[in-house]
Amino acid sequence: MSATPVTAVNTSMALSELVALLTRIFIRHGTSPDVAAVLADNCARAERDGAHSHGVFRIPGYVSTLNSGWVNGMAVPQVEDVASGFVRVDADNGFAQPALAAARPLLVQKARSAGIAVLAIRNSHHFAALWPDVEPFAEEGLVALSVVNSMTCVVPHGADRPLFGTNPIAFAAPRADGPPIVFDLATSAIAHGDVQIAARKGERVPPGTGVDSLGQPTQDPRAILEGGALLPFGGHKGSALSMMVELLAAALTGGNFSFEFDWSNHPGAKTPWTGQLLIVIDPSKNAGQGFAERSQELVRQMHAAGLRRLPGDRRHRARARSEEEGIIIDGEELERLRALAQA
Amino acid sequence: MSATPVTAVNTSMALSELVALLTRIFIRHGTSPDVAAVLADNCARAERDGAHSHGVFRIPGYVSTLNSGWVNGMAVPQVEDVASGFVRVDADNGFAQPALAAARPLLVQKARSAGIAVLAIRNSHHFAALWPDVEPFAEEGLVALSVVNSMTCVVPHGADRPLFGTNPIAFAAPRADGPPIVFDLATSAIAHGDVQIAARKGERVPPGTGVDSLGQPTQDPRAILEGGALLPFGGHKGSALSMMVELLAAALTGGNFSFEFDWSNHPGAKTPWTGQLLIVIDPSKNAGQGFAERSQELVRQMHAAGLRRLPGDRRHRARARSEEEGIIIDGEELERLRALAQA
Repeated sequence: MSATPVTAVNTSMALSELVALLTRIFIRHGTSPDVAAVLADNCARAERDGAHSHGVFRIPGYVSTLNSGWVNGMAVPQVEDVASGFVRVDADNGFAQPALAAARPLLVQKARSAGIAVLAIRNSHHFAALWPDVEPFAEEGLVALSVVNSMTCVVPHGADRPLFGTNPIAFAAPRADGPPIVFDLATSAIAHGDVQIAARKGERVPPGTGVDSLGQPTQDPRAILEGGALLPFGGHKGSALSMMVELLAAALTGGNFSFEFDWSNHPGAKTPWTGQLLIVIDPSKNAGQGFAERSQELVRQMHAAGLRRLPGDRRHRARARSEEEGIIIDGEELERLRALAQA
Repeated sequence: MSATPVTAVNTSMALSELVALLTRIFIRHGTSPDVAAVLADNCARAERDGAHSHGVFRIPGYVSTLNSGWVNGMAVPQVEDVASGFVRVDADNGFAQPALAAARPLLVQKARSAGIAVLAIRNSHHFAALWPDVEPFAEEGLVALSVVNSMTCVVPHGADRPLFGTNPIAFAAPRADGPPIVFDLATSAIAHGDVQIAARKGERVPPGTGVDSLGQPTQDPRAILEGGALLPFGGHKGSALSMMVELLAAALTGGNFSFEFDWSNHPGAKTPWTGQLLIVIDPSKNAGQGFAERSQELVRQMHAAGLRRLPGDRRHRARARSEEEGIIIDGEELERLRALAQA
């Protein structure tokens, strides 16, 4: 027997078990059962896919936000059918994912009928990865693009001070012989969640990632988080894309820009109160061969050019492993989650 | 009097004069008057806006391509009304701009009615800048996004060999107190036209721009053009966006991927035979304040954060100067153009 302290062992959980645990946590901290079901499913799938920065790592942030009264856990999204290709949703100061879930059937119906449709979500909080919002459309044979703005933490290229959010862009497209082609990229040089994880682990971030509170380049994640800021990826081009995300996710939806909300009266609030845009296209309206066959051909040629890994491949491999071995949750993490379900 | 050879002096031309000269060149080299009018207008406006890599610099390439029989200068685009938000065009192996011009009224009508509409152009050649395709929509109060794939010259991030084109993304949005917000960015680290200009001037390109024929990094534009290749901007993120452009502009339209066409039987051919996608959104369908007021607010805040220049500002300043002083054409350039109008 060892004399070292007993530490909790890692636990393997089925997706349904993890969803059930997370659902209890959300309900316990003030969400409706409907909202809890959507958020728990979203978060558990990220954990299953090895997307740890958006998995159970996010739960304390959700709880802290809910406890602060910043977000409406009981939100009932109001879906409006605006035009033959346009749906808008007032998320009721709740999370974006339940708003998407509420509007999704109408959005899909419009995309299949009109060939393209747009969903404008406003008055919403997005605290998750963006790929779970687009991937299911591709699993139904549709092409989907989504953008969401977040909170001021990125200095526009050529500016002195932060203004944009990390403002991710996610895209999904079906292919014939495999899971959809999916990517989800922050228009910042690094995702905010990855800076938080680096800070927690005491690791440095790559050069060109961010600046400290004096605007000087730094690789210290804490200096970025405490008064510093991120830089856009790819210089002026990433910065232009980040600006586009502000215009589409906020100006076009009626949501807040990343710099417009004030949560100072809600200590513990972590979630940006902004908007989200989704565009869904039905590729069966196109000419020529089936889209999924064509996208498969592109994948084939990418591999022939020497590419070993496609965007999304690592996630799909982690998913396959989780489906075989269960989702592995660190013992201490699991204890913390169980405590939150009862707290 | 000087003993040096007499060189032609720079000439100032009105936009209409330059359009008329370029129209004569296009017709002289085998296009219909309709096609000539669209291409001449496009090219002259790029020159007017100081976008030299897509201005009269391109004319010899257009002529060489037309003379090679690679592209159909007499093309009559076939517009199909596919669904309430979906228009497609077979460009008849002609240039993309006349196809866009032919489909544009239906596209705008659908966007205003459905809230969003998509135009899928296939069997088309795009040899111009992409911003002229989107900017006019924003001048009408619409938001527009376009992508076009080109020809294999970019190595996907993590691959060994080139596969993607320079695959630009262009975006335009109206704003209340100024010209539209517009950007047009190659998803390669540098635009192909800029590599050609650097080669012509004997200048080096920035590090991280491209590789030579052995796949080694190089700053010599000739090494990139002669058997070498470009890299995507922003590493894996720019590469993912370039892949998205292939999927939207080719797989979704029924056009060729950047690696699919074979012009070896057409010496002198310069124009990629691919496809183009445009998405147009009517922001008046949104909630809340007017879109143009909101985008103006974003611009105001970008300036307040220390940004001196917005994407498109340099072009709009050059345009104002051209409108005052005329478009300045180098004397030798003008002689070459006049010769092409008679050749």
